[in-house]
Amino acid sequence: MTSVEETVKELASQTRDEFYHYLSIPTVSAQKTGIPETVEAVKAMLEKRGADVRVLDDLGGNPVIYASFVSSKSDKTLLFYNHYDVQPPEPFDEWLSEPFVPTLRDDILYCRGVADNKGNLMTRLVAIDYLLMRDGELPCNVKFLIEGEEEIGSPHLEPYLEKYADLWQADGCIWEFGGKQEDESFVIDCGLKGLIYMELNVSTASIDAHSSLAALFDNAAWRLVQALASMKSVDNRILIEGFYDKVVAPTEEEIKRTLDIVVDQEGFNRNFGLTRPFIEDGRNPANGLALTFSPTLTVNGLLSGYINQGSKTVLPKAAMAKIECRLVLGQTPADIEQLVRKHLHKHGFDDIELKVLAAQSPYRCPMDSAFVKLVEASANDVYQPESKVLIRPTNAGTGPMDLFGKYLNGMSIATSGTGWAKSQAHAPNESMRMSDYYQGIRHMIRLMDTMDDMEG
Amino acid sequence: MTSVEETVKELASQTRDEFYHYLSIPTVSAQKTGIPETVEAVKAMLEKRGADVRVLDDLGGNPVIYASFVSSKSDKTLLFYNHYDVQPPEPFDEWLSEPFVPTLRDDILYCRGVADNKGNLMTRLVAIDYLLMRDGELPCNVKFLIEGEEEIGSPHLEPYLEKYADLWQADGCIWEFGGKQEDESFVIDCGLKGLIYMELNVSTASIDAHSSLAALFDNAAWRLVQALASMKSVDNRILIEGFYDKVVAPTEEEIKRTLDIVVDQEGFNRNFGLTRPFIEDGRNPANGLALTFSPTLTVNGLLSGYINQGSKTVLPKAAMAKIECRLVLGQTPADIEQLVRKHLHKHGFDDIELKVLAAQSPYRCPMDSAFVKLVEASANDVYQPESKVLIRPTNAGTGPMDLFGKYLNGMSIATSGTGWAKSQAHAPNESMRMSDYYQGIRHMIRLMDTMDDMEG
Repeated sequence: MTSVEETVKELASQTRDEFYHYLSIPTVSAQKTGIPETVEAVKAMLEKRGADVRVLDDLGGNPVIYASFVSSKSDKTLLFYNHYDVQPPEPFDEWLSEPFVPTLRDDILYCRGVADNKGNLMTRLVAIDYLLMRDGELPCNVKFLIEGEEEIGSPHLEPYLEKYADLWQADGCIWEFGGKQEDESFVIDCGLKGLIYMELNVSTASIDAHSSLAALFDNAAWRLVQALASMKSVDNRILIEGFYDKVVAPTEEEIKRTLDIVVDQEGFNRNFGLTRPFIEDGRNPANGLALTFSPTLTVNGLLSGYINQGSKTVLPKAAMAKIECRLVLGQTPADIEQLVRKHLHKHGFDDIELKVLAAQSPYRCPMDSAFVKLVEASANDVYQPESKVLIRPTNAGTGPMDLFGKYLNGMSIATSGTGWAKSQAHAPNESMRMSDYYQGIRHMIRLMDTMDDMEG
Repeated sequence: MTSVEETVKELASQTRDEFYHYLSIPTVSAQKTGIPETVEAVKAMLEKRGADVRVLDDLGGNPVIYASFVSSKSDKTLLFYNHYDVQPPEPFDEWLSEPFVPTLRDDILYCRGVADNKGNLMTRLVAIDYLLMRDGELPCNVKFLIEGEEEIGSPHLEPYLEKYADLWQADGCIWEFGGKQEDESFVIDCGLKGLIYMELNVSTASIDAHSSLAALFDNAAWRLVQALASMKSVDNRILIEGFYDKVVAPTEEEIKRTLDIVVDQEGFNRNFGLTRPFIEDGRNPANGLALTFSPTLTVNGLLSGYINQGSKTVLPKAAMAKIECRLVLGQTPADIEQLVRKHLHKHGFDDIELKVLAAQSPYRCPMDSAFVKLVEASANDVYQPESKVLIRPTNAGTGPMDLFGKYLNGMSIATSGTGWAKSQAHAPNESMRMSDYYQGIRHMIRLMDTMDDMEG
């Protein structure tokens, strides 16, 4: 008799063409490319497997895909949250193969979106293939919410969740991502940080001027640099007044669980080629506590004046920065936006224009819920003993988890995905190990197979 | 009998094709484009007028052109310093006509390089046409030094001036630029500020990382922003230790002459669309004293991370800034470079890599020299009464004037050019008024006609 492992590999091979087609579409929500083709591809993959599919597009933004598989074997319902959009591929010249050409090297698949998050959707679908092949139907009811604006902060998702809340009721939700740490431990997250992503623009003149005039008037690059520097100290303390005031401190259990997870500084140094020491911000040492419980303020991009080769003696008329804050429980994007505006005003930077590009609140669900326990148990069945399975209160990443809590009755949520230490999500040469892909499929099979055992 | 004015216009018209051909070559030294064609064009224009021309290229860099016209009428020799290279044309989308297509609108000629400095070379050449047509030879000996790296800081000029110093001995030198202020006064400068142009680069990782990791490690954009901000206060005090220490204070006469020159703040506001108040830096009020005697520190360009539309949640691995200091008498590029390096080290920014892209020392020659008096008198003959003629100790701009002083026996130097308040040198839509062009030609005629009267 063929083992599950062998059958899963065989099914992965049989579905390779539809996976590669899905990966090859440049679904960059930030740049509005490839959306209709991708929706069509996802819909086709779901319908091929017998799902009832609805493409919802009546409330603005990229379509939100609903899908449902009904089972006669269980009353329990599992919800999968995924997104079909990906990060921009830039900088192009750092990709070893074309960003949107799925390329296998040493059993690692490279493509923009393979880790975040197209590969994970495929683990759900191939798991369904396995169960349908084995039993003719699924062992529990399964629903999907697949959106197309996760990488730009899910700006249109809330009205869909509100209006169609009934469609997506479930007993638990598997979040879009997840996976393994440096030390190969498999981590399941029960929460996410929030995010506010802002663009700052300053204009000091209508034209660039000869830089000999610098003695007479300000230039935009200096204004921006000084506004940014006023917001964070060199030793990484955020200086925006009130920024830390509403932060909810973690519980002892949350701290304990978090400290179980090793932050492998050596591994980070190696994988990212870091040249600076790890941050100890005075609030937290450089370990999992910082990653899990410290809010951040990051400069994501800077542009002003002359940036090509050689010298150009110019006073830039305009300057732009993209910045973001990762938020922790207690902080909201609206509060932080107001604090940043107040800060700019108080420090004399009223000429800096602030635009919010994305906003999401943080969310944590209880680590001891019946659903999380089930996800943990099924993960133990698949990942042990090679990988320890660990539960973490919150991932450092962001997503619209709080909306699921708000509109789906405090939904219990846990992550499961194919990530690894070199996934390079959001960076060039994003990748997924095929071995993690097969395990991810098996985890989803095992979870669906055990959903009916869930308490409550 | 035809007036000088009419003949000059006629000659300008007859030489229009060679002028436009000269302008149409994209001689961008920073980007290494168009050099050989431009050298050929300049050589042809000089030889056509009977000059003895030598293209010097034995000491590296873009060729330096020497030319000489010998006169039997006078022992006096006038030297013209010009440059055939221009600034980069970027940003392209702000040009109303193509940067390298000479375009006349409302009797104003638009083209990259028309003001800085191709138009000024043409005033010298058309003045020579006039004198040769009138007398068959020039009223004094005339020499040219025309280089091709002024816009990148003349990095190779020094060895040419040293080796060929004998070729360029003269009784006075007309500098490449000059012209009119906002209020139409014609200003003659007897000196230049110095310059050090630097590129700062910082690398914090070998790849961009997902920005959720910001709690763990620094990103390059922050490092750069904080290093820059440490060098200048919000109110424009340069904070680099020792930066002002060697500044030579201006004499009373220099201050008096400088204050004669109106800094028309209204005019600047209008022409540049300024949105910020003029700088009063605590050392100087916002007037000609600051422009003439205050050193500056400018951010010319910034680049890091994601700069396209929308949001990308990335930790930039690298960041770059172009910065410059304009230097005044007493300061040298080498001193300032050392002070900047010391500053970065002292403030913990050893990870910022500093590269000097251009360096020039400041220079002032005496405002009361016989040559400057002659330039002033000849300018009075041409520009009065419409324009006041004013002498200023130092222009806020930069050039290799100190090398002329060093290798050509403390050469007496004065500026004369076709600049006006909206020349937009170094910016899009660079321009020259045709009326200033005709006057510039006449000033050069008058100066050559009076060179033999020069005392000493």
